[in-house]
Amino acid sequence: MNLVQPRLSRGLRDLLPGDTLARQAMISVVQGVFETYGFVPLTTPAVEYLDVLSGSGGQEIQESIFVVHNPEEEELGLRFDHTVPLARVVAQYKELPKPFRRYTIGPVWRADKPGPGRFREFVQFDIDSVGVQSELADTEIIAGICDSLDALGVTNYEVRFSSRRVLNLLLTYAALSPERATDVFRVIDKLEKIGIAKVRLELTTGYTDESGDKIPGLGLTGSQVDQIEQFLGIQSPSRSEAVRKLHETFDSIPGAHDEIGVLEKMSHYLDVAGYHDDRVIIDLSIARGLGYYSGPVFETILLDAPQFGSVFSGGRYDDLVMRFLGERIPATGGSMGVDRLLAALLALDKVKLRKSTADVLITCFDQKMNDDYIAMTFELRRAGIHTEMYMGTDRAGKQIKFADKLDIPIVLLYGPDEKAKNVVTIKDMSVGRTRAQQLTGSREQWLQERPGQFEVPRENLAVSIKELLSKIAG
Amino acid sequence: MNLVQPRLSRGLRDLLPGDTLARQAMISVVQGVFETYGFVPLTTPAVEYLDVLSGSGGQEIQESIFVVHNPEEEELGLRFDHTVPLARVVAQYKELPKPFRRYTIGPVWRADKPGPGRFREFVQFDIDSVGVQSELADTEIIAGICDSLDALGVTNYEVRFSSRRVLNLLLTYAALSPERATDVFRVIDKLEKIGIAKVRLELTTGYTDESGDKIPGLGLTGSQVDQIEQFLGIQSPSRSEAVRKLHETFDSIPGAHDEIGVLEKMSHYLDVAGYHDDRVIIDLSIARGLGYYSGPVFETILLDAPQFGSVFSGGRYDDLVMRFLGERIPATGGSMGVDRLLAALLALDKVKLRKSTADVLITCFDQKMNDDYIAMTFELRRAGIHTEMYMGTDRAGKQIKFADKLDIPIVLLYGPDEKAKNVVTIKDMSVGRTRAQQLTGSREQWLQERPGQFEVPRENLAVSIKELLSKIAG
Repeated sequence: MNLVQPRLSRGLRDLLPGDTLARQAMISVVQGVFETYGFVPLTTPAVEYLDVLSGSGGQEIQESIFVVHNPEEEELGLRFDHTVPLARVVAQYKELPKPFRRYTIGPVWRADKPGPGRFREFVQFDIDSVGVQSELADTEIIAGICDSLDALGVTNYEVRFSSRRVLNLLLTYAALSPERATDVFRVIDKLEKIGIAKVRLELTTGYTDESGDKIPGLGLTGSQVDQIEQFLGIQSPSRSEAVRKLHETFDSIPGAHDEIGVLEKMSHYLDVAGYHDDRVIIDLSIARGLGYYSGPVFETILLDAPQFGSVFSGGRYDDLVMRFLGERIPATGGSMGVDRLLAALLALDKVKLRKSTADVLITCFDQKMNDDYIAMTFELRRAGIHTEMYMGTDRAGKQIKFADKLDIPIVLLYGPDEKAKNVVTIKDMSVGRTRAQQLTGSREQWLQERPGQFEVPRENLAVSIKELLSKIAG
Repeated sequence: MNLVQPRLSRGLRDLLPGDTLARQAMISVVQGVFETYGFVPLTTPAVEYLDVLSGSGGQEIQESIFVVHNPEEEELGLRFDHTVPLARVVAQYKELPKPFRRYTIGPVWRADKPGPGRFREFVQFDIDSVGVQSELADTEIIAGICDSLDALGVTNYEVRFSSRRVLNLLLTYAALSPERATDVFRVIDKLEKIGIAKVRLELTTGYTDESGDKIPGLGLTGSQVDQIEQFLGIQSPSRSEAVRKLHETFDSIPGAHDEIGVLEKMSHYLDVAGYHDDRVIIDLSIARGLGYYSGPVFETILLDAPQFGSVFSGGRYDDLVMRFLGERIPATGGSMGVDRLLAALLALDKVKLRKSTADVLITCFDQKMNDDYIAMTFELRRAGIHTEMYMGTDRAGKQIKFADKLDIPIVLLYGPDEKAKNVVTIKDMSVGRTRAQQLTGSREQWLQERPGQFEVPRENLAVSIKELLSKIAG
């Protein structure tokens, strides 16, 4: 018999139960926040026509599309983001009421070079408002990010926002032609990562980095770079102070006050809604890589875990349906990096990895008593207690170790002795563990010593377990 | 400019917000039931190696795999079910604790010929127990299906189970060679659909159906078909009666009592757990198409919507990891047809289609008062009330119509008059609607007549809305 090797292609991975549970819990919190905001979910298929996917997302993303073949041999591919399918849906279903404020949670595929923490299939959680010109829409998405992080128990974060159109003022200010915009903004975007000295070098002559790679320069003049540095120097922990400095710096550029007014309005709306300088700031180095942003842009940094980069990013893009309908529809939105945020929450200990959904394991060590175990199992489940019945035929010790391995907090023991006395033995797994840790004894030891075990009347079983569970939780 | 036509390839579809909300709600109920049972979620990627996917699921499914290309030009495909990835995971992560009881929710892809209600990407919700030989595992899955349907408000359903090994007894009984098994069982499986007369014809000489198609016969003898009919005649609303008749019929076949004993044990366990003859029956015509079943098999019919077929089916398959490890691991499980069950629930009016997640729409008809609208919006959201703020600049009437179109039950109106009086006007959309229906007046009429409108003090806003919402719900 030819055996097939069980394996996955590079960049793909399984999420085992502990990680899936943690991810589900995290997603459900954020989903709850945006449903409180009245956003609605949209589902689109993974497979789209290649011409629908093409022309978006830049060359690098285009080359990373997983191509798919159906029996009709049509040109198909797996979606690489949720924005292109949203654009298709908005163009295809003209009857959709607008403002159309939707969220989408699901995998996207990019056949990039895989690396640590970099996968070819990853989940994105996108939130977008389509059909709204007002800065209220941008403001609301930033507010939703703050509420989401609050609800996840993250206390120390910063949403940083700016505007592509304010960056465009910089082009005029530094006498740069609009064609240089993408290159220049790409370098500016690296400010936090590489520092101002290297940004200057990359904007002018280029430099050789630590690994010996030659980073080419953009050939800007010294005075142009001075202007850019002055712009990037407009920093303040106060949004209104940053706005004031912007007005001052760009005072002589026609239309500048209107463009800066967008940041000013957002800042004001954020204050009215209760999101102040302590967690939402203006940061002029935010440019965002993707070419399609046309207004406000933002990023979100967890200040206690900055190594994970931005966990929630986005901005305004008004060319959403242009490729499909030839017309402009305003849109703004953000994308949560689900796997990145989960990794950060795990690092910050804001999410517990649970290996089981069960709070109780009913051991079944005497098969003659199966009927009792079944009755007990379903009695507890009907009382809403998450209960697993051990279905192997192993001895009790192995069944208790199974609960230990899966972090199931309560184990029930019920044999002929208990039945005669009309009681059930409850084993509180946390007690033994604590004592074992204190004594630095072996796991086998505390399992044998039967710590945390006590008997309750059979008829009080569900009530006793509920009490114990709230004691453990509280 | 070349416009791209917004469209999907055949057999693919979008699920707009109303349907996605309904599907999410349904899935979450069933997920809750199986988490109460202690099942854990598993996530695997959509893309698998073709050799991992191959050799499973029969030729028809193999030919329907969507082939995928990555830059390395490996041979990949989209998964066509969740069982093959489960088998790969069990073989690949030997450290996974067993019993491994997992659920998986996600799309699978089959490039079949699409038809009404038949899609090429569809969601399956699978529940499986791996590593359990005991019939307790099969029993538990049937119990979970009953609990799920109860929790979804379905009252009239039937889980029908049988066993492949009892069907095998029939082969001996009717003097059929084991090679005929697949063909004969395939015909028997059609009993409910085509009736006993046509089953007899298909087992013997064949016949021509209504559309003129020639259905070939299997060439069985009259006495063989008599035996089969006698077997299929073993029907009873009582499980214990069906078991008794089986023992009687197969009394002379060696080993028969053990095989029938499996159905007997399941029936007993089901009774102990509280799932009686009124909703779980033995049905000997259940064979299930897929070749890999090796023990108990089951189907689930909604008796008030039988046209949707089985909404939850499965059985035992003990060759799960054979292709990967060359060894046998017992496994049993079931698959919920998510889209099929949702269609049935909609037909039975057990699921409401909601077009919005918002319970309140705050109209914004005076832009000078934006700050008030924002403050109100976030005040309600912080009180846990699902609130949308209308972000267009349309007149109030259009904003109210937007709420009407999306079935948002409460609309708030707040202009300079209200502000001066320190009140908010609440519009209960259900009142107007009811009156309009009574009067058979036009929608425009009731919108103008301002029914269901009343004022509440600004400071009591959240409390008043909560009261109104519980009145509407109750």
